[in-house]
Amino acid sequence: MTNDLFDKHRATLERAVEACRTRESWSAYGEPPAADADAFEAQLGKPFDDDGPGTPHPQTDEVSPYTGEPLGVSYRRATVDELVEAANRAWPRWRDADPRVRTGVCLEMCERIHAADLAHATMHTTGQSFGMSLTGSGTNALDRGIEAIAQAYSAMTRVPATARWSRSFGTSTVELSKRYRLVPKGVAVVIACASFPAWNVYPALFASLATGNPVIVKPHPSSVLQMAMAVRACRRVLAEAGFDPGLIGLAVDTVAEPVTKPLVRHPAVRIVDFTGSAAFGSWVEANAFPAIAYTETSGVNSVLMHSVGELQPVLRALAGSLCLFSAQMCTSPQNIYVPRAGLPTAGGRVGAEDVAEGLAEAVRAIATVPRRAAAVLGAIQSPATVALLEQVTEQAAARGRVLLAPQPYEHPEHPKARTSGPLLARVDVADRDLFAGERFGPVAFVIACNDADQALAMAARDAREHGAITAFAYSSDEGYLERAEDAYALAGAALTSNLTGAMPLNFSAAYSDYHVTGLNPAGNASLTDDSFVAGRFRVTQSRRAAAAARG
Amino acid sequence: MTNDLFDKHRATLERAVEACRTRESWSAYGEPPAADADAFEAQLGKPFDDDGPGTPHPQTDEVSPYTGEPLGVSYRRATVDELVEAANRAWPRWRDADPRVRTGVCLEMCERIHAADLAHATMHTTGQSFGMSLTGSGTNALDRGIEAIAQAYSAMTRVPATARWSRSFGTSTVELSKRYRLVPKGVAVVIACASFPAWNVYPALFASLATGNPVIVKPHPSSVLQMAMAVRACRRVLAEAGFDPGLIGLAVDTVAEPVTKPLVRHPAVRIVDFTGSAAFGSWVEANAFPAIAYTETSGVNSVLMHSVGELQPVLRALAGSLCLFSAQMCTSPQNIYVPRAGLPTAGGRVGAEDVAEGLAEAVRAIATVPRRAAAVLGAIQSPATVALLEQVTEQAAARGRVLLAPQPYEHPEHPKARTSGPLLARVDVADRDLFAGERFGPVAFVIACNDADQALAMAARDAREHGAITAFAYSSDEGYLERAEDAYALAGAALTSNLTGAMPLNFSAAYSDYHVTGLNPAGNASLTDDSFVAGRFRVTQSRRAAAAARG
Repeated sequence: MTNDLFDKHRATLERAVEACRTRESWSAYGEPPAADADAFEAQLGKPFDDDGPGTPHPQTDEVSPYTGEPLGVSYRRATVDELVEAANRAWPRWRDADPRVRTGVCLEMCERIHAADLAHATMHTTGQSFGMSLTGSGTNALDRGIEAIAQAYSAMTRVPATARWSRSFGTSTVELSKRYRLVPKGVAVVIACASFPAWNVYPALFASLATGNPVIVKPHPSSVLQMAMAVRACRRVLAEAGFDPGLIGLAVDTVAEPVTKPLVRHPAVRIVDFTGSAAFGSWVEANAFPAIAYTETSGVNSVLMHSVGELQPVLRALAGSLCLFSAQMCTSPQNIYVPRAGLPTAGGRVGAEDVAEGLAEAVRAIATVPRRAAAVLGAIQSPATVALLEQVTEQAAARGRVLLAPQPYEHPEHPKARTSGPLLARVDVADRDLFAGERFGPVAFVIACNDADQALAMAARDAREHGAITAFAYSSDEGYLERAEDAYALAGAALTSNLTGAMPLNFSAAYSDYHVTGLNPAGNASLTDDSFVAGRFRVTQSRRAAAAARG
Repeated sequence: MTNDLFDKHRATLERAVEACRTRESWSAYGEPPAADADAFEAQLGKPFDDDGPGTPHPQTDEVSPYTGEPLGVSYRRATVDELVEAANRAWPRWRDADPRVRTGVCLEMCERIHAADLAHATMHTTGQSFGMSLTGSGTNALDRGIEAIAQAYSAMTRVPATARWSRSFGTSTVELSKRYRLVPKGVAVVIACASFPAWNVYPALFASLATGNPVIVKPHPSSVLQMAMAVRACRRVLAEAGFDPGLIGLAVDTVAEPVTKPLVRHPAVRIVDFTGSAAFGSWVEANAFPAIAYTETSGVNSVLMHSVGELQPVLRALAGSLCLFSAQMCTSPQNIYVPRAGLPTAGGRVGAEDVAEGLAEAVRAIATVPRRAAAVLGAIQSPATVALLEQVTEQAAARGRVLLAPQPYEHPEHPKARTSGPLLARVDVADRDLFAGERFGPVAFVIACNDADQALAMAARDAREHGAITAFAYSSDEGYLERAEDAYALAGAALTSNLTGAMPLNFSAAYSDYHVTGLNPAGNASLTDDSFVAGRFRVTQSRRAAAAARG
């Protein structure tokens, strides 16, 4: 059975390994499968059907951003000790399984998650649009999971199983036969964020699983259902393959009684993957010892406007990126620098105010048209984001000018949806306290700067000091683009230059785009480099005298 | 010039990469070069000729274990800030150099260290015998350095420099050209131990350097000269290759005023490699953040006696390993378990007391014959080790029986040498408090146990709880050896079975033997797996619209 799974998915694995090597475009998935709203509706208000330690409690923090109604799903809640115990009980058989067997099982899990129809659960917990729930949280996130499996597999197969070793010592030749084993570290914990959990959970979960570790997934209390369904799909695959499904646990907590810190500090925990705020991420990095920590937190992503050919496609691309999931993504741009003297374009110089107004207009064209807004913006995951929006709007009004106030749009299907178009504020480069840190949600600043070089210096500094994952530049000057590439490389943000057109600016492709660099406070881990997988297992060796020929 | 160095060493690099892949036997070196005692003598009492920040002070903690005389060498002493500043000043050119250029320069450094004639400096700081100074601290340690360079080179070359990426979004095809850069983490600090610094410093130094980081080497204050000479050789290569020699700094401190903690905690430091005590290693692992820490500390290594063919070769091999450098190695065995009922051999059962006495006799045959002892045991690096020996001897006498008291031997060339043969104590499995932790130096316990399975359970538990790097088993029962291999794999110690003959039991071969697993308190890093190199650099990317064809 289990070797069958490796054979079943071997072509996918080999193609994924090759894509990681070339970093070309590839996806394991064609179109996403159909999604069934009725099945989701049927789950509401009911106990969640899965085994595991603990007893079912309703999760009172899950409220749909689309309906404003609690989901009312009851999940099993277990203590941290119970979860760790279940994980350790299930571990030995998985630990001792051949890496190929584990790899096959992990790839089967991806296939089952893909088929598990999580789209409505994703939508009604994260606030993502239906389309994004299917693709960004679905196929694209699963591709990042497969990427992690492929990288883990490559790392494991670089260690040979055996070696023959022969050397002269004086007049003797010593012959040893050596055996190398891959030993996983131990219990892994995956701490998920509320708005885009799949993106980080799948790579972390599968990197730890493929290398042989048991995993406890801890979703954000307001965003449990999608992860619970994903974990259940994986647990079923384990059981079918003859492994103890307790290998993967689900830690359900509440906002009032969080378990993240006790989980991270549990003495049996050896690996922690964390997605969340920069402050909590730093705490995890500093306190996870003896566990190793892989973090992705948050950052302040910038756009540098230096010179463009045609302005309108640029403004449309930027507006699309500001609107995408109401900028509740770690890759969304926030700070848009426009030189005071305006922007050289193919059709002549465009004044800075005209650029700003043009951007506001391009945003309005998406965010105020309900059907487009519903597809692009989706809903606001947390009421806290709405409160922050109001606060920043006030600050911006007091200091600069509000180009575009954050306005809700009326969702065509969910009239009670918590929605908001972006706040677009016009500020000066001197208002650094307003924009130097991340303002989570649909907040963007159009910043008047002296010139594009000042903007680059400031944006790169903000990236180094406050973290950044992405950056964007528009310039027809090759020299400027090179300076920007150099500066962001050192600041640790991925730079996209002169992009317009159909691809969202902040789209990050599995197998090709490294996500987070580990060089600034936006996180210490990267999807998916060698260091993301290499520390999750260790190599132990044994050697025996094979023959000892005396000379 | 610098590309020439890559070409010059390309064959060595390729051979090292291949050896890391197959883990077969290989060395970059033939015989060690001749060593010149006169050159060493000429350095005594003089300023050490090297540039760098700070002014020369005599290093009062350096006293030769062979002569009892202070070396009297004056090294430049700089503040931590000055060292970090020099490192960061030298960094950009090295950081921006092609990985091949850096690799070539690092391999040239190894060649120059090899030619730099460190043997007498090594001997008179560490106490190693002349032979071990030439090979263990010389060629074999440099091979571990080359191994780290090869692994770093492999990790860096797995990341492509560019990619072309094309994907459909709706009716459009988006084409991106992507560029990936390797960006080093930043200032690296290497904390060395007193008795065998080369073994860990070379891999750490070259792993950090090859991946583009500046490095500050901090030798133990009683064991500076060898490292100062190695650093000077490297700095000269840098200068010749057109780089700022400040890239590699030497932090000289004193026992009275140590700088290790301020170095580790300096906010600019990004990487720490540490060798030393388990307690200090834990502190480093817990406090290095935001730097990443790679540690090797100490452990309690065990020998399991289950059944043997011929007993005498086993006792000779064990005795050799107990005597080698007076067991001042992290790989030296300490706890030898012999079943109370004795040992089945090809010639019939040998009683436990006879095994113990036979081992004592085999040790005596080395440790009491001055010429052999000088070649094998060398001298005792630290007076603290002699004091500990006395203390443990008293404890053992009170609780068990002293089979062999630690006796100095008269060194044929250095009558004032601080020497000691091993303490061999006969204790019971119940005396766990005596032997469960590491007793650094020539201390060995022959432990009476119920049977070899009890021994295995206890030894594996000690490895997990107190750390262990090596383990040794003697058994003619395949089932027992398999159980031992399984148990030590999980406990994270390298097991060597049934080895006798010319190779020292605890010999660890570069390119082949993984040194330390990271699975127990003996350290979190392994020479040299992917995770030892992968975290020392990060990948940043930039992408540009290559063409956007609308459908």
